[in-house]
Amino acid sequence: MEEVRIEELTPLILQMLRDKNFKGLKDELSALYPMDIAEVFDELEPEDCVILFRLLQKDKAAEVFSYLSPQRQKDIVGAIHVSLLNYIFNELYFDDKIDFLEDMPANFVKKLIATAPPEERGLINQFLNYPENSAGSLMTIEFTDLNKNMTVKEALAHIKQTAVDKETIYTCYVLDDTRRLEGIVSLRRLVLSDEDQIISDIMTKDVVLCGTNDDQEQVADLFKKYDLMAIPVVDSEQRLVGIITIDDIVDVIEQENTEDFLKMAAMAPSDDAYLDTGVFTLAKQRIPWLLILMISATFTGAIIGYYENLLSTAVVLTAFIPMLMDSGGNAGNQSSTLVIRGIALGEISLREWPKVMWKEFRVSLIAGAILATVNFLRMMVFGNGDFMIKFTVCITLFFAVVIAKLIGGLLPIAAKALKLDPAIMAGPFITTLVDAIVLFIYFSIANVLIF
Amino acid sequence: MEEVRIEELTPLILQMLRDKNFKGLKDELSALYPMDIAEVFDELEPEDCVILFRLLQKDKAAEVFSYLSPQRQKDIVGAIHVSLLNYIFNELYFDDKIDFLEDMPANFVKKLIATAPPEERGLINQFLNYPENSAGSLMTIEFTDLNKNMTVKEALAHIKQTAVDKETIYTCYVLDDTRRLEGIVSLRRLVLSDEDQIISDIMTKDVVLCGTNDDQEQVADLFKKYDLMAIPVVDSEQRLVGIITIDDIVDVIEQENTEDFLKMAAMAPSDDAYLDTGVFTLAKQRIPWLLILMISATFTGAIIGYYENLLSTAVVLTAFIPMLMDSGGNAGNQSSTLVIRGIALGEISLREWPKVMWKEFRVSLIAGAILATVNFLRMMVFGNGDFMIKFTVCITLFFAVVIAKLIGGLLPIAAKALKLDPAIMAGPFITTLVDAIVLFIYFSIANVLIF
Repeated sequence: MEEVRIEELTPLILQMLRDKNFKGLKDELSALYPMDIAEVFDELEPEDCVILFRLLQKDKAAEVFSYLSPQRQKDIVGAIHVSLLNYIFNELYFDDKIDFLEDMPANFVKKLIATAPPEERGLINQFLNYPENSAGSLMTIEFTDLNKNMTVKEALAHIKQTAVDKETIYTCYVLDDTRRLEGIVSLRRLVLSDEDQIISDIMTKDVVLCGTNDDQEQVADLFKKYDLMAIPVVDSEQRLVGIITIDDIVDVIEQENTEDFLKMAAMAPSDDAYLDTGVFTLAKQRIPWLLILMISATFTGAIIGYYENLLSTAVVLTAFIPMLMDSGGNAGNQSSTLVIRGIALGEISLREWPKVMWKEFRVSLIAGAILATVNFLRMMVFGNGDFMIKFTVCITLFFAVVIAKLIGGLLPIAAKALKLDPAIMAGPFITTLVDAIVLFIYFSIANVLIF
Repeated sequence: MEEVRIEELTPLILQMLRDKNFKGLKDELSALYPMDIAEVFDELEPEDCVILFRLLQKDKAAEVFSYLSPQRQKDIVGAIHVSLLNYIFNELYFDDKIDFLEDMPANFVKKLIATAPPEERGLINQFLNYPENSAGSLMTIEFTDLNKNMTVKEALAHIKQTAVDKETIYTCYVLDDTRRLEGIVSLRRLVLSDEDQIISDIMTKDVVLCGTNDDQEQVADLFKKYDLMAIPVVDSEQRLVGIITIDDIVDVIEQENTEDFLKMAAMAPSDDAYLDTGVFTLAKQRIPWLLILMISATFTGAIIGYYENLLSTAVVLTAFIPMLMDSGGNAGNQSSTLVIRGIALGEISLREWPKVMWKEFRVSLIAGAILATVNFLRMMVFGNGDFMIKFTVCITLFFAVVIAKLIGGLLPIAAKALKLDPAIMAGPFITTLVDAIVLFIYFSIANVLIF
């Protein structure tokens, strides 16, 4: 729905740029959501973005900036006046500031931090030191804090006074004098309570929280499980240092899914958008696994090499190798994908591995029998030649499916048990392993039945 | 962090159940979050769940029920008293009610709807008719509506009066007399405004909204793009009929990702949790694609069959088939996964296909050259035999990587252009196609250089 609009909008804006119709562009841009402008920017060339960016009102420019991809942010930072840059930087929410700085070169970061208010500088440096993908690196400091002795009326007045700078006011955090978290109270609760009730009487003491060093994936799981809108982040001394809001968690969920997609296709994980990633980075992300899998596959070749003399007396067997290898690989791939996904979503736990194996075993019997039967019929109708060859191929196919599904079901759970990422036990790895086993079965059966 | 607790909790609760320590169980359960109880239930056998469920307080039972998997809901519905069931049903939020009814058998649904308040029955029937995975099937009717002529004070009083039954009060919807949406106003805005301001002066008129028949994936994209907490859903006459809140969108995002994972591993998509899915359903989800891919792979075999006579004079060539097929498949799989993911996240648009091809081409030259070189060195050190065979294998490997990456990059975009789901152009399909091409190149080169 929206996509169409952007696809229509981009050429329109480009045309206006070429016509140097800056007045029209200004009007057009001021009517658009900042997110839409950011999306148009991602489609345009850097030079055009810079021109458009200068046409934006200061406030809107800051907002658009926070939605741009890191690459576009870099393009614009290099081309705008330092005073506008400082303005934008100081308008950003604290977590957006940190995200932006994390992608910039170190000496640039130093210069920019120097322009921040002194009380913020220490904080920025502290936040830049949280490990990547930790709760600390995601959180914002702009939360609303209350005191437990306030009345509801005082609390609402306090919120009203301070809300402008807060990322959310819908959950408020009740702190003691040492900034330890004593409880939370939602704005909903505040609005629904009588004006003279005391915060300590209406706050929730039992709070789901996380630590600054917790991994973002764990934090996302807490949001999913408890339907949270925000989560407080505490340091090692249980002091509240920040909060994470759900809009950032939505991005984390997509990022974690992308990582799994990449790992499952035998690539090093990366957060960068495809088109913004350089050719050498892309190559570096892919080549190590390609090499490992290539070398593994030579062992499969060695099995063929071992049976070379036998094979030369029945070269026709070679023609079925792709079908057997592919079917085994695909069958194993299906199972491992389902199990990896089940583990990622918390639906399958380690203890349940016998259930998984039993299920995969029964599915594999059905799938193997159907595939072998269909293939046998196909070979009877279209193929010619030795019955024993057909029989060998179909028996191998059956065993290939059964073994592939058992391996595909088991390996991701085994990886989890060994504290490895289950996602690496996916397609390419399973395929390579299953290939070797399938060929071994194929030649062993052929050795008995044919040669 | 939380997972550990559940893993410890489940055996503890099981032990108390076996000791018939119901008093202890009641205390234990009342100290737990409803979401944690639901998670324990998913680990236990149905009979045990029913006993535990009866130990819950009525209110908590209703809440736990809304977090259970459809399978556990069914188990419990079959075993509890009809009066408790009716109580729970009427306590559920409207969208949870609909979710629950969608998974239950039709005659049961009829009976249960009969117990609902008359004014709700029509609505329930209407909601059950929205297409699966549409905005209509996700939305809830429990939103807060305001009139544009209210003052802020009146609006807050109205919210206070009606909030108990609302799923969210953080976004309020301003409707005209015909229930058409005129604007929205956030509770934040209300709290920050002066008491005697008029709603029409502070509301936002430019609202991102969706229609009842919009696909849930489109709706999720709107949430991601505009950082929404809730979205209004309008019917064909632009009347507000419901809202969708972000907690439901988080589930949609995971569901859409799961669908992509399954499609990319050549399976029919499904929403059901792996362990709750029957063996025949799982088999049905997998076998069609296995059959299609098996039959496609026989064409690859036909290429070998065609060169059978040549091959019999150099059987050693067979030993390199798995390595060449796997490397080609893996290289193509990497590219298609990156492009499919890029399309799903909106980072790659159709118009950008030349950029994608150019990038893949350059990456493939690097990857192909490195793989071919490493393999050549390996063959020189460990292999024996004809230099021309080594040369043939390495040249084929290079072309295999280049062609696989171009195909892997292009096909998902082509699918998108043809309004097909890019996710089907993944691993298994690419592998089968690339296999055939790789073998054709292999034998063509061998035919010139060796035979």
